[in-house]
Amino acid sequence: MLAPPNIAWKKNKSMSRFWSAVVHGLTPYVPGEQPKLANLVKLNTNENPYGPSPKALEAMRAEVGDSLRLYPDPNADRLKAAIAEYHGVKPAQVFVGNGSDEVLGHTFLALLKHEKPLLFPDITYSFYPVYCGLYGVNYKTVPLTKSFEIRVEDYMVPNGGIIFPNPNAPTGCLLPLADIERLLEVNADSVVVVDEAYIDFGGESAVALVDRYPQLLVIHTLSKSRSLAGLRVGYAIGHPGLIDALTRVKDSFNSYPLDRFAIAGAAAAMEDRSYFEETCRKVVATRSRLVGELEALGFDVLPSAANFIFARHAGHEGAELTAKLRERSIIVRHFRNPARIAPFMRITVGTDAECDSLVAALKEVLATPV
Amino acid sequence: MLAPPNIAWKKNKSMSRFWSAVVHGLTPYVPGEQPKLANLVKLNTNENPYGPSPKALEAMRAEVGDSLRLYPDPNADRLKAAIAEYHGVKPAQVFVGNGSDEVLGHTFLALLKHEKPLLFPDITYSFYPVYCGLYGVNYKTVPLTKSFEIRVEDYMVPNGGIIFPNPNAPTGCLLPLADIERLLEVNADSVVVVDEAYIDFGGESAVALVDRYPQLLVIHTLSKSRSLAGLRVGYAIGHPGLIDALTRVKDSFNSYPLDRFAIAGAAAAMEDRSYFEETCRKVVATRSRLVGELEALGFDVLPSAANFIFARHAGHEGAELTAKLRERSIIVRHFRNPARIAPFMRITVGTDAECDSLVAALKEVLATPV
Repeated sequence: MLAPPNIAWKKNKSMSRFWSAVVHGLTPYVPGEQPKLANLVKLNTNENPYGPSPKALEAMRAEVGDSLRLYPDPNADRLKAAIAEYHGVKPAQVFVGNGSDEVLGHTFLALLKHEKPLLFPDITYSFYPVYCGLYGVNYKTVPLTKSFEIRVEDYMVPNGGIIFPNPNAPTGCLLPLADIERLLEVNADSVVVVDEAYIDFGGESAVALVDRYPQLLVIHTLSKSRSLAGLRVGYAIGHPGLIDALTRVKDSFNSYPLDRFAIAGAAAAMEDRSYFEETCRKVVATRSRLVGELEALGFDVLPSAANFIFARHAGHEGAELTAKLRERSIIVRHFRNPARIAPFMRITVGTDAECDSLVAALKEVLATPV
Repeated sequence: MLAPPNIAWKKNKSMSRFWSAVVHGLTPYVPGEQPKLANLVKLNTNENPYGPSPKALEAMRAEVGDSLRLYPDPNADRLKAAIAEYHGVKPAQVFVGNGSDEVLGHTFLALLKHEKPLLFPDITYSFYPVYCGLYGVNYKTVPLTKSFEIRVEDYMVPNGGIIFPNPNAPTGCLLPLADIERLLEVNADSVVVVDEAYIDFGGESAVALVDRYPQLLVIHTLSKSRSLAGLRVGYAIGHPGLIDALTRVKDSFNSYPLDRFAIAGAAAAMEDRSYFEETCRKVVATRSRLVGELEALGFDVLPSAANFIFARHAGHEGAELTAKLRERSIIVRHFRNPARIAPFMRITVGTDAECDSLVAALKEVLATPV
C-alpha cells in the first residue's frame, strides 16, 4: 500500500503556501527565557520567589488518581466560587482561563475588536499588539508621560476599547484607582480592561468598581502573587454581560481549558488568604530594600508597585548590564524596543539572598572599568 | 472617592453592545454533560473506563512542589520528545496543545482558512462548524454515504482544506489508510487533517504517511486511549512547515498552554507503552461483547473502531431510550441533529460491569410496553 517515498520533505521550500493569510501576517510574542540550566539566579520572568500555598499543594496532590481519566468541570464552578468569594463578587461575574494570557486573548476577540481603534500605552505588555495581529484588531498606542506614567486624560478620545496593565509592565508604575474611576465616568460606551497581573504587590484593585461600571473588566493571574506560574490559571471579573461574551468565545474554542490540577490548586490558593498575604508582604519588603541598594549604586529606579523593578544607570546601557549579569549566572530581562526603555533592565524581586547576589554582581560590574 | 452606586447592573439590558461582531455571530459548542452526581454509569463523553498509567500518576505526583512557582517550558520539549519517540518522527514534526480541541482551534485558523471552502463530513465532530464560525472559515459539508461512511472520492474537488475524524465521530466508522492515501495523492495543494482521537481503539494511524505527504496533519488526544481527559493534552504531527504555522498562532495567543502536570504526566503516559496497549485491548474486547449483546436485543450497531458505539433500535427513538436510561442512572449521548442520526445513541464503552448495567437496563426498557 505504501507509495514510494517522495522527497517533498527536503525539497519543499514553500510550505508556507499552506498557511492562512493570518499566519503570514503574525509577529508572535517572545516570552522571557525559561533556561534549563540549574544554579541560575532567575530574575527575568517575574515569578514569585516563594512556592505556592501548602494548601494548594495538598489540593493538587489529592488530584493525582484515577479520576484524571474523566474530563474536568468545563465551567470550573468550584474555582469560580473561590475567586468570587475572595473578591466579594458573584460567580457569574467571574471568567477563568488557561493563564491570564488566554483570558486576554479571548478578551481581545470578544470585547476589544470594534471599528474604532483600541487604545493602549506605547510602553506596555508587549503581547497586546500581538493579539491585535492575531484577531485583526485596529489599535492606536498612547504615549506614556515623560515620567513613564499613564495619564487617563490621553484616553478620553473616541475608541473601541481601552486596555492597560496596572501596575504597568514593564515599568511597574501604578495608576491610582481614582484615576481609573475618572476614566470610567467619561468612557461608558467601550470596554475598559485593567490588567492587574501585579496589583497584589502594592495597588488597590479595580474589582471594587465592577458593580458600578458595567464596561469595566479586571484581569488577574495566579502566576505572580499566588506563586502558580507552573499551573496556568488566570481570570477576569466584570459584569455578567461581559463574562458571557468571553464564555461564548471560550466555548467556541476549547471546552475544558483548565485541567483538574488547575481547578483544585487555584481554588485552594484563592482560599489561603494568610499565606498569600504573608508572601506578598515579604516580596514588598525585599523590593524596598533592593530599590534602596540599587539607588545607592547610582541606579534610577521607577517607583514600583509590582514584584519587579525597572532600573537604569546613567553610566551603563541596559543591554550591557544584562549581558554582564548573565556572565555571572544572573538573568534579568532587557527590552530593546521601544528605544525609550532600552537603557533599562527589568529585574524580578527574588528572595533576599537572590537580591544580595544581584547587588554584589552589579557592584563588581560597575567597579570594572569599561 | 466612590461614586454613588449606579443601577447599571440591573437596568442594563444591552450589554451585548460591548460584544464584537464575532461574538454576536457565534453558536458555541455544547460538550457532553459532566454531571456532578455520584453513582452514575457515565457512558456519555467517551472517557476511558481505566485510569491513567501508574507511571503517569507518579510523574504528576512528582510535580507537586515549589517549582510550580516557575513557568513551565513554553515549548514542552520533554513532551514533544516522548511523542516523537512513540511515533517514530522528529520533535520538529510535533505540536502540542491544551487538549486536541485547542490544537484543532489553532489548525482551523492557521491552516484551514483559505478562499476555497474547507470540506468536512455532514455528520462529524460538531465542533468543526463552531471553529469555522469563530475564525470566519468558509466551509462546505460533504454527505456521508447511506451506510454512514466517508467516501474519499467525494472530497476530490477544489477545496481550501479537508478535515475528518478517523474513526469518524459520532459514528465510529473507520476509513482505511489506503483510502486516505488515495486522497492525499490527488489532493496536494491544501492541507488534509486526520483527527485521530479514537484511532488507538482499532485503526491504523495516518502518522505513517506524514513523511511522504507534506500536506498531511494528524491530530491525537491523550483524553481517550491514554485515560487523561482530566489533564488536557493533545498534539498534531506533520511536516515541520505545518507545525511552524501552528506554533506561530500558539505564540500569538498563549505562550504556556501546558502546565507542569500536563507536560510531565503526558510524557510519562506516552512512554508507558505496555499499560496503554493493555487498556486499549480491554476496551476493544468489551466493545465486541457489548456489540454482540446489543445486536441480540435487536439494535443495529454501526461498525466501530472507537471506544464508543453508535446504535439504533427499530422500535424506539434514540431520545426516548436515552431518557429512559437516564431514569436508571445511565448516561449516554443523543444528538438531535442532523435528523439522520436522531434515531441513534452514542454509547461509550465502559468497563464490563458498566456495560452489563447498560444491557440490563435496556432489556428492562425494551420489555416495558410503550
